Amino acid sequence: MKKIHFNKVTIIGVGLIGGSLAISLKEAGACDTVVGVGRGIENLETAKRLGIIDSYTTDVKEGVKDSDFVVVGVPVLSIAKVIKTAAPYFKKGSIVTDVGSVKEAVVKEAESLMPKGVFFVGGHPIAGTEHSGAEAAIRGLFKDRRCILTPTSNTDNKALEKVKAVWELAGSEVVIMDAAAHDIILASISHLPHVIAYSLVNTVADMEGTVPPRPTPFGVGASKGRSGGIKAGDVLKYSAGGFKDFTRIASSSPEMWRDICLMNRDAVLRVLDEFQKRLDEIKGHIKDGNAELVQKDFERAKRVRDSLKR
Amino acid sequence: MKKIHFNKVTIIGVGLIGGSLAISLKEAGACDTVVGVGRGIENLETAKRLGIIDSYTTDVKEGVKDSDFVVVGVPVLSIAKVIKTAAPYFKKGSIVTDVGSVKEAVVKEAESLMPKGVFFVGGHPIAGTEHSGAEAAIRGLFKDRRCILTPTSNTDNKALEKVKAVWELAGSEVVIMDAAAHDIILASISHLPHVIAYSLVNTVADMEGTVPPRPTPFGVGASKGRSGGIKAGDVLKYSAGGFKDFTRIASSSPEMWRDICLMNRDAVLRVLDEFQKRLDEIKGHIKDGNAELVQKDFERAKRVRDSLKR
Repeated sequence: MKKIHFNKVTIIGVGLIGGSLAISLKEAGACDTVVGVGRGIENLETAKRLGIIDSYTTDVKEGVKDSDFVVVGVPVLSIAKVIKTAAPYFKKGSIVTDVGSVKEAVVKEAESLMPKGVFFVGGHPIAGTEHSGAEAAIRGLFKDRRCILTPTSNTDNKALEKVKAVWELAGSEVVIMDAAAHDIILASISHLPHVIAYSLVNTVADMEGTVPPRPTPFGVGASKGRSGGIKAGDVLKYSAGGFKDFTRIASSSPEMWRDICLMNRDAVLRVLDEFQKRLDEIKGHIKDGNAELVQKDFERAKRVRDSLKR
Repeated sequence: MKKIHFNKVTIIGVGLIGGSLAISLKEAGACDTVVGVGRGIENLETAKRLGIIDSYTTDVKEGVKDSDFVVVGVPVLSIAKVIKTAAPYFKKGSIVTDVGSVKEAVVKEAESLMPKGVFFVGGHPIAGTEHSGAEAAIRGLFKDRRCILTPTSNTDNKALEKVKAVWELAGSEVVIMDAAAHDIILASISHLPHVIAYSLVNTVADMEGTVPPRPTPFGVGASKGRSGGIKAGDVLKYSAGGFKDFTRIASSSPEMWRDICLMNRDAVLRVLDEFQKRLDEIKGHIKDGNAELVQKDFERAKRVRDSLKR
């Protein structure tokens, strides 16, 4: 692994990803100091108290001054805006990278804003939880994960190697990929699942009240009392582990996922179309009572899912 | 809690649910002997070796003879068939219950097949994992879970009380509910999520090959080698924790879920329709770039999901 060292690292947006990367860099002794930049003082205070950053500022220009390595960890729709503000103040020879979940649009905008002699490399670590903010940052978040880097013909090779080294130092396997390929892959395995999870939870929430608490001859309710207790209409009360696992990602930040869906709109709509076609198909099989085709579909999915680790 | 004791308990279908219930009954000393009934000798051998059952037979009639408590733990489409075969041999005064995920149709069929003096109570423990078979049976599977019982005007009150006591002994909270209400609730929180998970995995699997491994100026691939390594088309390789959690239920038994979807067809189609409407809505918002409405939808879902424990 390549040994890297930066004097000053700047993390703009000290959230789950930016914060966890700062922890990795500090623990590896790969930098002298980490400056956090953000809009919320409270989050920056938390990050400092937790030792994730050494100092902070709410002024982007101040934050990137003299910095060798700038990580832009803000929501995807804000990346270009932040870079635009910071651009005149980037240190000559410094490297700027981002961690956004959408790459083609972000990289295009970022490259167009980069001053001469400052090197941008688009990146996306495939890691995360449903939590956000500096408090959610953890050691080892990127360990044994993949990080996708999306260089273009404008990318400086040495800068690419350094950004690669940073993510390898954090424990990730780095994959080099075209930004458009990244966007369609992530739309499939991440963005679409979030849209589905949010929609499913809303569907189930809508069922509340539409299920009449039809009494049985023995009443309706929980063990504790026959007439009182749980109403049959409390649909969500009956959800067990499967539903909770399935919908955990619906606890993710609505703002973040709104931005991702809007910025990766074409890819998201494309995979959503495919998914809807699949749903229509299986719906038809169920409607027809076609046991063979229902089973065939389910079997194929099980085979594919079982092939994933865990 | 009511003290219960059966001389002989019969578990027809010694899988995850039937097997785990047998473990609970034995551990509580609530029966003298447990007989397992099934078609697969290998699974029955496993169950006996693991101490889940005391003996076994592949002959349903033999299995239910002299039994005080019969648990039918076979796939939902097979419940009526099994009960039809066993009916002439049920002991007078015995209690028969099932653990099927669909209740209205099952209860109707079961009640029509019950001989005079034998008491049927429909039940459904809301517990499970994506695994199946006796080997998957575990202690405490039903602890702190809910078990729904769906009595009708034909249900014997004493039998209902006994079945309730069995599930309470296994650690569950028992909820009395109308079978039709059960079916629509479970369609929402369990059957629909399975259909979605299977369909999503198939959608993503279909994306393989449609993503051209467009090379970057720096090649395509993993850290290990630039030209070789991972192809951009290997969509599923990039799935992280979120996707795995989300699709875990797609590892469930295709046969079991095929039967559930077909048997609970009307309710599944009803909630699937609702879900499709929701998807169309959010798709429209994304297409329109309507940030406000996308966020409103996601926020509502997050609020609902966060209200669930865990």
